[in-house]
Amino acid sequence: MVDILHQVGVRATPDKVFDALTTIDGLSGWWTEDTTGSTDVGGVIQFRFPSGGFDMRVLESVPGERVVWEVVGGPEEWIGTTIDWVMFQDDKVGDWTVVNFGHRGWKEPIPFMHHCSTKWATFLLSLKELIEHGAGSPSPRDLKIIFWELEAAAR
Amino acid sequence: MVDILHQVGVRATPDKVFDALTTIDGLSGWWTEDTTGSTDVGGVIQFRFPSGGFDMRVLESVPGERVVWEVVGGPEEWIGTTIDWVMFQDDKVGDWTVVNFGHRGWKEPIPFMHHCSTKWATFLLSLKELIEHGAGSPSPRDLKIIFWELEAAAR
Repeated sequence: MVDILHQVGVRATPDKVFDALTTIDGLSGWWTEDTTGSTDVGGVIQFRFPSGGFDMRVLESVPGERVVWEVVGGPEEWIGTTIDWVMFQDDKVGDWTVVNFGHRGWKEPIPFMHHCSTKWATFLLSLKELIEHGAGSPSPRDLKIIFWELEAAAR
Repeated sequence: MVDILHQVGVRATPDKVFDALTTIDGLSGWWTEDTTGSTDVGGVIQFRFPSGGFDMRVLESVPGERVVWEVVGGPEEWIGTTIDWVMFQDDKVGDWTVVNFGHRGWKEPIPFMHHCSTKWATFLLSLKELIEHGAGSPSPRDLKIIFWELEAAAR
């Protein structure tokens, strides 16, 4: 099993980060504009992109602390993997929230996992931009990092 | 052992990517302006940043195909880890090079590894920008993603 790990600092409270991860408005503002479903624990959120999409069951949602999703629909390599978000305010710097991210349980470190790792980084930066400046870069306006994304977007 | 994995597509030949990874000029254009040393196999490259730096011994350098470094100086968590770059032209899309990146051999998935994973993504995007558009975002003009980078840059 291999994991994708990331971290960003966001100049905002943990509650602001939590809101962006647990409301359809928030999620639509940094990951994909085509986000629907239920963000309650046990609910399923549908994220759609030009090249396909993911369905996430919400496993945990602890305000200002932690959010966990399980992938229940999407590419075969994603099914059964989990995505966790842990957020906390650093005591030394009161106006920043550290966000630790894990996309865990990949069976193999395939090329698609390499792609998803880099792509997750761009979306974490989009999340940071949304919270700090009011506008992220969700799909379909996301940063394209390889040719097949451009092809999918053009279809 | 845990690895950081990334991938970008670059609209250029593998040789252009190889040049950006194996010349002081190229490396200074996307990772850090303060790059010195020898990029030959067996040589050591010194990369310096406001918050410290890394010394990399060049283990492999195969034109247009592969570059491998071993970290021989820098933060304790980096020492002994390896960084490999594999580049190849996708047969289906002749004008693109796929770049697969691995920073391997981390002992533990510590928070600093999360940070480095996201930061590597920003530098791979900087590499892509340099090659495709002639200008990357190397340190000290790199994208800052957490408070302690801003503090180090301000010192």
